[in-house]
Amino acid sequence: GSELLKQERAKSNIDANQLAQFLFTKEALERNERILKLLTADPVFDKSHNYFQGREARIEASLAKAKRLRQLQVQHNWTQDEFMCANELLSEATPYGLHYSMFLVTLREQGTPEQHKLFLEKAENYEIIGCYAQTELGHGSNVRGLETTATWNAADKTFIIHSPHLTSSKWWIGSLGIVATHAVVMAQLSVNGKNYGPHPFVVPVRDMITHEPLPNVHVGDVGPKFGFNTMDNGYLLLNKVKIPHVNMLARFSRIDPETSKYTRPANPSLIYGTLTFVRADIVLKSGSVLARGVTIATRYCAVRRQFQDQDAEASQAGENQVLNYTMVQYRLLPLLATTFALHFTGRGMIRMYQENQKRMSASRDASKSEDTKRHPGPEELNPGTDLLADLHATSCALKAYGSTMAAEGLEVCRRACGGHGYSSFSGIGSYYADYLPTVTWEGDNYMLTQQVARYLLKSARAVLAGKAAANDTTRILKAFLARQDMGAAFDVLGSDTDLVDAFAWRVAFLTFEALRHRDEEKQSWNSLLVDFWRLSTAHAQYMVVKSFHDALSEPATQESLPQDTITILYQLFRLFALHTLEQEASEFFMSAATTVRQIQLARKASMKLLEEIRPHAVRLVDAWSFPDWQLDSSLGRSDGKVYEDMFHRASSLNALNKVIVDPYPNSRVLFKKDGRTSKL
Amino acid sequence: GSELLKQERAKSNIDANQLAQFLFTKEALERNERILKLLTADPVFDKSHNYFQGREARIEASLAKAKRLRQLQVQHNWTQDEFMCANELLSEATPYGLHYSMFLVTLREQGTPEQHKLFLEKAENYEIIGCYAQTELGHGSNVRGLETTATWNAADKTFIIHSPHLTSSKWWIGSLGIVATHAVVMAQLSVNGKNYGPHPFVVPVRDMITHEPLPNVHVGDVGPKFGFNTMDNGYLLLNKVKIPHVNMLARFSRIDPETSKYTRPANPSLIYGTLTFVRADIVLKSGSVLARGVTIATRYCAVRRQFQDQDAEASQAGENQVLNYTMVQYRLLPLLATTFALHFTGRGMIRMYQENQKRMSASRDASKSEDTKRHPGPEELNPGTDLLADLHATSCALKAYGSTMAAEGLEVCRRACGGHGYSSFSGIGSYYADYLPTVTWEGDNYMLTQQVARYLLKSARAVLAGKAAANDTTRILKAFLARQDMGAAFDVLGSDTDLVDAFAWRVAFLTFEALRHRDEEKQSWNSLLVDFWRLSTAHAQYMVVKSFHDALSEPATQESLPQDTITILYQLFRLFALHTLEQEASEFFMSAATTVRQIQLARKASMKLLEEIRPHAVRLVDAWSFPDWQLDSSLGRSDGKVYEDMFHRASSLNALNKVIVDPYPNSRVLFKKDGRTSKL
Ligand SMILES: Cc1cc2nc3c(=O)[nH]c(=O)nc-3n(C[C@H](O)[C@H](O)[C@H](O)COP(=O)(O)OP(=O)(O)OC[C@H]3O[C@@H](n4cnc5c(N)ncnc54)[C@H](O)[C@@H]3O)c2cc1C
Ligand SMILES: Cc1cc2nc3c(=O)[nH]c(=O)nc-3n(C[C@H](O)[C@H](O)[C@H](O)COP(=O)(O)OP(=O)(O)OC[C@H]3O[C@@H](n4cnc5c(N)ncnc54)[C@H](O)[C@@H]3O)c2cc1C
Repeated sequence: GSELLKQERAKSNIDANQLAQFLFTKEALERNERILKLLTADPVFDKSHNYFQGREARIEASLAKAKRLRQLQVQHNWTQDEFMCANELLSEATPYGLHYSMFLVTLREQGTPEQHKLFLEKAENYEIIGCYAQTELGHGSNVRGLETTATWNAADKTFIIHSPHLTSSKWWIGSLGIVATHAVVMAQLSVNGKNYGPHPFVVPVRDMITHEPLPNVHVGDVGPKFGFNTMDNGYLLLNKVKIPHVNMLARFSRIDPETSKYTRPANPSLIYGTLTFVRADIVLKSGSVLARGVTIATRYCAVRRQFQDQDAEASQAGENQVLNYTMVQYRLLPLLATTFALHFTGRGMIRMYQENQKRMSASRDASKSEDTKRHPGPEELNPGTDLLADLHATSCALKAYGSTMAAEGLEVCRRACGGHGYSSFSGIGSYYADYLPTVTWEGDNYMLTQQVARYLLKSARAVLAGKAAANDTTRILKAFLARQDMGAAFDVLGSDTDLVDAFAWRVAFLTFEALRHRDEEKQSWNSLLVDFWRLSTAHAQYMVVKSFHDALSEPATQESLPQDTITILYQLFRLFALHTLEQEASEFFMSAATTVRQIQLARKASMKLLEEIRPHAVRLVDAWSFPDWQLDSSLGRSDGKVYEDMFHRASSLNALNKVIVDPYPNSRVLFKKDGRTSKL
Repeated sequence: GSELLKQERAKSNIDANQLAQFLFTKEALERNERILKLLTADPVFDKSHNYFQGREARIEASLAKAKRLRQLQVQHNWTQDEFMCANELLSEATPYGLHYSMFLVTLREQGTPEQHKLFLEKAENYEIIGCYAQTELGHGSNVRGLETTATWNAADKTFIIHSPHLTSSKWWIGSLGIVATHAVVMAQLSVNGKNYGPHPFVVPVRDMITHEPLPNVHVGDVGPKFGFNTMDNGYLLLNKVKIPHVNMLARFSRIDPETSKYTRPANPSLIYGTLTFVRADIVLKSGSVLARGVTIATRYCAVRRQFQDQDAEASQAGENQVLNYTMVQYRLLPLLATTFALHFTGRGMIRMYQENQKRMSASRDASKSEDTKRHPGPEELNPGTDLLADLHATSCALKAYGSTMAAEGLEVCRRACGGHGYSSFSGIGSYYADYLPTVTWEGDNYMLTQQVARYLLKSARAVLAGKAAANDTTRILKAFLARQDMGAAFDVLGSDTDLVDAFAWRVAFLTFEALRHRDEEKQSWNSLLVDFWRLSTAHAQYMVVKSFHDALSEPATQESLPQDTITILYQLFRLFALHTLEQEASEFFMSAATTVRQIQLARKASMKLLEEIRPHAVRLVDAWSFPDWQLDSSLGRSDGKVYEDMFHRASSLNALNKVIVDPYPNSRVLFKKDGRTSKL
């Protein structure tokens, strides 16, 4: 094992450290190391039992880890980045997970200064622990369909929060199952019999001293899950629970306590912005999520040897590393390319988001100085919102695409490891299972594609009407219209920019097709959902191909990396693009973005790229810089000691091996262990 | 919930019971019911804790179930079918799993009458419990690379079984971890310094009384896995363990104890036959495996309502069943079609296998009467072997394809259930995780495709040389050659037989392409692996389409089912075929099996079929006849009481809800439970 990985590293001239610095910055890498030292020194964070423990033991241990992480955060005065880095290294959700994310964010963004004092400050100090309770047993995607009610009671200036049916029970709420003292509950606001739609309310759910559920609150954990079992997702039924006026989060909409008058959301596009950021972050993370699986599988497939090459001379001794089989390369190396593609795409998204936020707050400041009293209205947001709308649609498309690629790619990596991939010690299975909800939450990946399509249709209509805003989407739609009749003729194999343009062409083609179905043929929305999903996927693929290419072409890239490394990155770019093109071949030739002949050649070119990238595979995954402790994988060890580690864990750490059974069917004895005997 | 499923059932005129009888026979359905009653009456088989238990508790409970099943088998004098049916209903692997399958089969098929007396009879009575130990830490697919040695010692007529390296440790061996007393160990037979390759040896591993490991035997459980955790997969290291001559299973090859002379395998094609049968059985099962997920998801998606239809009038009240969204139909209904497709294919395979076995044993009997003393040599097997070779290749292709479809389809079903699919109570996740090794064992699905390609290349060479045997493979290759220059012109949308022929055409095209690459262009085997995998997949898809069509066209089918039901089955056939065609579009037009225009029309036709099949979806899954107890799913309940069941399990069965925690980070208290308190 060790020898083989050494040879692999010797074969490639890529400087993995330099590439790592380029990907993550030197500061981030140093921070990682510093925090890793702290964590590994503390027995609370010991990982050796993780794969063996049942649900209760795991969540108990995870609560301990959460507490200690919070203590360290205070003690070392960690920044948010440092805190998140510690969580990444730990690689498990803890019961504080939704407290320090959604609960704090919601209080901060949707609370007034008064409410910040009342709730946010305590929450930031962990004097109250909270969660974000939106989804119900009966409603997830359709937020407007929520059934929990919040009825304004003008007489004593309170809201009555109520769960009218079983299906209105809040469900899936992270950090609610066992730890939360408070919940932000999304409930239908009802004032004088009129429904104003879902709004956020702060509801205490457990006693601050005894931690027992409060009266009329039925709260608990929703039970075991496919993964994510270190998190206490919970349920909550409220039986006419009364809360004071101040508990309705009132930054964007409020009830006047005196007149019972409802004032409308002032600035919905800010919330829009947060959603966009959360999704951009999922895209960025999807690269590193997938990279964990690719790291493990690539290293193991370089260590694993099986069979002699079919065409080898009889004299040639020794078995082949399975990474040398093209069938294994075909499964793993495009995913390796995808990790970089998603990383650069996520980075680009976050950069665009930040620029846009700056622009928006600048324009807000400008308008403020004119009229400080006035609430900012939507019209003031125009300088940013066109871009934000584009960014938002892109973030939907990319969240759906990136998280699907990451989830499915992890399973491909697991299978590439053959039988040993199925062992918990591979480190891929449990990580995959924990990651899976990402395809469902923050917008179910299929649902999101409808939003993308809606935006693209709107853009296409604007382009046809000559009233389009200036952004990349309208640019590619216009470019398509201009050349539509001449045809495309992209040199996808000879020119990288043509390759990017072919992806753009396909998006534009599918957009106008969908528009024709919807506007001219008047087809129903429902009948077009599959087309919309295809369209959204095409859009996401275009954005990834474009972002990857843009990132490589930046002067900063050319300056930071040696030419050899840049060459390999371009090969990865081409592999990603051509492999995708080949997978989606029928759309490329139906849209006339490529010819059938080009697709055949793209296949060949992909196979050639696999061969070129193969020698650098181990160094490329090294650049992702995962410490062994983070991966917690026998197969992915950076020193290649795969079999020793598997054997050690199975024979020494495995408590089942302390058991003696009676194996015969007629004996009632089952386990004998520690002197105790269990019986049938 | 209940109401909605009632309405669904009212909407369709399919008689689910009649269809069920056609699929499984009346006897089988009655048997199921009879055994189900027995199992549900016995508290040992209670399933209510399954989703909550950790590994040790589960395997302990599973051992209890295994013992009770064996007791019932004896008590009720169950046939093998009845015993297997009980295991299916239980739906978990037990620690006896490899004993009653591979261990018994190997003793039976590879043992001599003397060995049957010595080992098989005891094993059949569970006086010894065994396993099949082939795979090692370092070798799985490549059986010839096994490192365990069996050295013949003429002096005292024994074999020394030895594990020379860490990597030679047997690994993954089912039933070995805690229960086996014996193992059939595959080891490299060495006689006088000469290696004769891997052979099977019966090796005692644990004391028959104390059940402690025997001297020089290091044996244990390999630890937690992604699934399959009710099975004790084990490891085994043997330090020069001596076994007598009789422990080498000697039906096919043996060492003469006096002369030390090695006698060769007499009849390898019989083993070939068993492998074929095992794979055919995997194909048949893959249909019902997938059907579990499809049943759960279809019922839940008929109960789940979310959003109003986008184009609905404002006045139209109520939310839409998510099964009405075409995007959900597009994900689920082709899988519904696949369940039937795989079922008929598996049934066809097993029928062909049995016919072939009959023919072979008939020809053996004939030759026996001529010369009863002579061992049957391979030349006598000819009447069957050509067919067997074809059947064997087909079984490889279909095992790889069917198990991949089932595994991946289950995950699609889980996701289709949105957030609730992630709950263990969905019943899909754990079943999927338990099923996953099927893509790796009995031939890794990617590895198998090389065998298929090798066979197809051989057949193509024989066809070109004019020396081809008569079977379906050579038939389609010849048909392609005959029309190659005229072109295909299949009416895939108008004629079902043309649709089948288009799939055959693509296989033949890809075969001759591969042949050209290999024989004319002399490309390396390794460089063609991806092409081979595509070819094997194409072959499998052709076989499935053909088998589905054949099954529907049989007179027996036409007689047993009413015309309405047959019409729907044909629609399912077309949906399966056209959906597959659309997924693999690029190969269909590159091989000129269809035009680009036909592919566009196939898409449209698929969407139309979804609409036609939609009203019958619930009745069609009902026909699969899974008892609720077997599915153990809140979402898949046949009465539609989805939310009640979810709520009950989460709140009442969930032991975590008996815990009170201290949620504050500065308190060292973690869990308070049953008076005990745990601390950080
Ligand atoms: C582990 C986990 C943690 C979670 N944590 C939280 C939390 O902390 N707080 C919280 O509030 N929520 C949480 N959730 C809930 C999560 O946000 C929802 O599960 C998610 O929004 C999906 O909604 P749903 O489950 O209702 O799916 P549904 O909307 O019911 O979807 C079911 C199926 O129908 C399809 N579908 C639905 N509508 C349409 C349509 N109009 N067109 C086409 N197809 C459609 C979907 O694609 C899906 O396949 C969590 C969920 C999980 C699994
Ligand atoms: C749950 C479980 C139960 C099992 N039970 C038993 C049991 O009871 N008894 C027993 O003996 N075994 C058992 N096995 C072992 C099983 O049979 C092997 O895991 C299987 O044969 C695959 O072999 P491998 O793990 O060595 O994979 P490998 O052969 O090492 O494959 C690793 C990777 O390399 C690829 N690869 C390997 N060779 C080539 C090649 N020539 N060309 C292209 N690609 C290649 C594979 O596709 C795979 O992706 C079990 C396994 C599991 C997971």
